[in-house]
Amino acid sequence: MKSITKYLTFHTEKRFKLINITQQIEEIVQQSNINEGICLINSMHITSSIFINDDEKGLHLDFEKWLQKLAPHLPIEQYLHNDTGEDNADAHLKRQIMGRETIVAITGGKLDFGPWEQIFYGEFDGLRNKKVLVKVIGE
Amino acid sequence: MKSITKYLTFHTEKRFKLINITQQIEEIVQQSNINEGICLINSMHITSSIFINDDEKGLHLDFEKWLQKLAPHLPIEQYLHNDTGEDNADAHLKRQIMGRETIVAITGGKLDFGPWEQIFYGEFDGLRNKKVLVKVIGE
Amino acid sequence: MKSITKYLTFHTEKRFKLINITQQIEEIVQQSNINEGICLINSMHITSSIFINDDEKGLHLDFEKWLQKLAPHLPIEQYLHNDTGEDNADAHLKRQIMGRETIVAITGGKLDFGPWEQIFYGEFDGLRNKKVLVKVIGE
Repeated sequence: MKSITKYLTFHTEKRFKLINITQQIEEIVQQSNINEGICLINSMHITSSIFINDDEKGLHLDFEKWLQKLAPHLPIEQYLHNDTGEDNADAHLKRQIMGRETIVAITGGKLDFGPWEQIFYGEFDGLRNKKVLVKVIGE
Repeated sequence: MKSITKYLTFHTEKRFKLINITQQIEEIVQQSNINEGICLINSMHITSSIFINDDEKGLHLDFEKWLQKLAPHLPIEQYLHNDTGEDNADAHLKRQIMGRETIVAITGGKLDFGPWEQIFYGEFDGLRNKKVLVKVIGE
Repeated sequence: MKSITKYLTFHTEKRFKLINITQQIEEIVQQSNINEGICLINSMHITSSIFINDDEKGLHLDFEKWLQKLAPHLPIEQYLHNDTGEDNADAHLKRQIMGRETIVAITGGKLDFGPWEQIFYGEFDGLRNKKVLVKVIGE
């Protein structure tokens, strides 16, 4: 069994941001020289997500509006977590809906994707460095 | 390390449909001759899900009602994504709640399941061919 | 490829309870003698979750309040599933938001975690024995 492990760093200028990271993952898969296996991609922080969906601008605004409705940022006093001095309780909740990680099959040396699948880093509490782990295992 | 990769196709006659696919996955695991490992099952489309829950008719109707409440299909104009000519923005959101993929442990050549675990394909924008990827890796 | 499979049992005295199980998972990873690979942790029941988030008391109460809002336990008659004699339809829904499983990378013989990542068992229908599966594969 072969494996490769890489760490990506993101620093967004807005609290909420969705970033297409598919190409960066493809490059790591290529470097791995793994033909058959799986690729794990996970946020190493608990206020951000890795997820697979569509790279369509309107949909990304729909996601933002929807997540703000399901887990509003304001008022920050509505969350006990924010009594600790934090203001990001909503980001901890949003990340549960969007997920921590995804696993993609590697077949014939490539991400085995359907026609529209793209991998996103979902930042819900940005303005600082956050890391993503990528691990490919297989042969 | 051994691996097997299969693709299943689903075409539902309704926009929303939950289909129990456990037996099809069991057959692939059997074909793989893998005793210890993992089985990845993921939707290859971004408006459908793979998830594990209960095969109970009432619960499936509860899921449908609940998902329509959290991410209503109508009015379609409420979503920017639908300005592209699509009408399935809600399905992109529903799929985030229900998830893209599941990973099941293979132990002793079988899906290592609890008493009620069943694998479902969740279709939220049907009426056309959609694919599911199944990959087993292990030894 | 090496593998190890373990089963943990939880029995909570309340219907809703979040339990930090990180140390138990670390011990299994250590026992496995696997240096590079992945660790799958999943609930074997369909009314509970495994997820990774923050070990902060206030946030756990926020999670409980939030999940009760998105999928209320009462009135139990609002769910068709409860016509079967069950009263746990809400737990089946809550578990979809919080997720069934997580996969953690094993790097250098350890859970490859960010600074705040902790693994939780999320019980939404307790008062009875429930099992969690842990499987490590790698080399």
